Amino acid sequence: MKNQTTPHIKKLVIIGVGLIGGSFALALRQAGMVQHITGIGRNPENMQRALEQRVIDEISDNYATALIDADLLFLAMPVGQTELIMARISPHLEPNTIITDAGSTKQDVIISALKHLTIHNIANFIPGHPIAGTEQSGVTAAQVNLFKDKHVVLTPLEQTNPEALEIVCQLWQACGAKISTMHADEHDQILAITSHLPHVLAFTMMHYLHHSTNDPSNLLRFAGSGFRDFTRIAGSSPEMWRDICLANRDELLKQIKTYNTELKAVQALLEQKDQTGLEQVFQQAQTIRQNWYN
Amino acid sequence: MKNQTTPHIKKLVIIGVGLIGGSFALALRQAGMVQHITGIGRNPENMQRALEQRVIDEISDNYATALIDADLLFLAMPVGQTELIMARISPHLEPNTIITDAGSTKQDVIISALKHLTIHNIANFIPGHPIAGTEQSGVTAAQVNLFKDKHVVLTPLEQTNPEALEIVCQLWQACGAKISTMHADEHDQILAITSHLPHVLAFTMMHYLHHSTNDPSNLLRFAGSGFRDFTRIAGSSPEMWRDICLANRDELLKQIKTYNTELKAVQALLEQKDQTGLEQVFQQAQTIRQNWYN
Repeated sequence: MKNQTTPHIKKLVIIGVGLIGGSFALALRQAGMVQHITGIGRNPENMQRALEQRVIDEISDNYATALIDADLLFLAMPVGQTELIMARISPHLEPNTIITDAGSTKQDVIISALKHLTIHNIANFIPGHPIAGTEQSGVTAAQVNLFKDKHVVLTPLEQTNPEALEIVCQLWQACGAKISTMHADEHDQILAITSHLPHVLAFTMMHYLHHSTNDPSNLLRFAGSGFRDFTRIAGSSPEMWRDICLANRDELLKQIKTYNTELKAVQALLEQKDQTGLEQVFQQAQTIRQNWYN
Repeated sequence: MKNQTTPHIKKLVIIGVGLIGGSFALALRQAGMVQHITGIGRNPENMQRALEQRVIDEISDNYATALIDADLLFLAMPVGQTELIMARISPHLEPNTIITDAGSTKQDVIISALKHLTIHNIANFIPGHPIAGTEQSGVTAAQVNLFKDKHVVLTPLEQTNPEALEIVCQLWQACGAKISTMHADEHDQILAITSHLPHVLAFTMMHYLHHSTNDPSNLLRFAGSGFRDFTRIAGSSPEMWRDICLANRDELLKQIKTYNTELKAVQALLEQKDQTGLEQVFQQAQTIRQNWYN
């Protein structure tokens, strides 16, 4: 496959033309790898903006016609809609259309795909997750360089067609991304820790302010850059994160509980005025943070 | 006091010439409000760097001589050292020296001051907290604009000399800061929520990775910008944060417990697969975050 020529996508169909879908379109277009982009989405205003900004070439609300001759179908809607969309596209998918997605959870997306897609379509389905994004959503947040130097995790199945996998790899590489492949369950476990749990903690922090006996605006007046960065992800789409949390529910619940045990341990050190213990926890935390990112 | 001329500090003494102490020196120097700066600190390398970078004019390790003719004494060491430093400086403080500090907690600093300082010195002591900083520490992290447009909270006492308060206000304003005054207990309550709790949560997150059954480096390889920002403050000084947590222990413990109750509520929504409830929490969190900072 290494010597294969760069893929050229005559027709790309994107379902969900938001931050991720829009950025994928912009990046592939800039790389000269795509000819025509059809967008499908729920929000007419957002779709109109996507058309005006030339992120897509046409808007469609008809899966049957949109999917005719599609070389690539990119699913970039909130993961909670996967089941519905899989059921809707399935009757219209051509056998050679390569399908990939951008869902933040992978096991649930695969379950939906296995339930609704034909054996032939499943072979050309490459589950994927670009680990990139901002707390903003919608096509206006799309950026041509969103995926540059970011990780994209692909979680191919046993029955995955290696040629389809190779093409999806090349497309992401054209967006500037670094590709990793792993099993879907490993992906979901890792992301529960490094993404889903922090989002829950940040949302909880902001919700907590909302319920605080103090006036939130008075509290926030004196909040500094630490609080700003800590809570940035609480500005993320509530629908998208509701879906992610429910899609990866079991693993996320496990992580919330384990985190809570850790928090209780820190609480106990504080209750016991254990200076050494407290400093040790903070020291280990600082070391691992600094070794990772400086 | 409004018509008073801009204060000119002939001799400024800074105890703890790190991020905060160093930035204060740089900003006052740039504003032309200080003539000579004497620095006192524990770490000889850091002090040498402060001297080489012209943040201070001289290094001293002798409180008795350093405090002679000091117009202003700025305490910018970790709050855990306050007790020790107050005891050490007290015998050498001149009655007209204005004293202020940068401690992230205020009630404990005031208790130390009341215990060690004379009535005359207490009148010229202005407890303060510049809400500015980065996760970095040491004089190399100091920035001339660190306090620009940042809040500085002053928590004067009943016996505070209004002229001393006014001078400290003017100095902070010269650094570009916005001044608020409030009671020390209100300060400590607010900061427990918006600063101390998030630090504990972020440190706990990184410590949790350290203890995870997964290899932390494998986890972190796939951590994105959300995780990066959420955990930035876990790169902060362990000693400083140990001290802050212990200094504001009662209030912080209260906040950890209340936060935990909120987290349990989110956990319950997830356990019950309560889509609406979960989205509502995230929605309220997102709204309050977006209304605050966009």
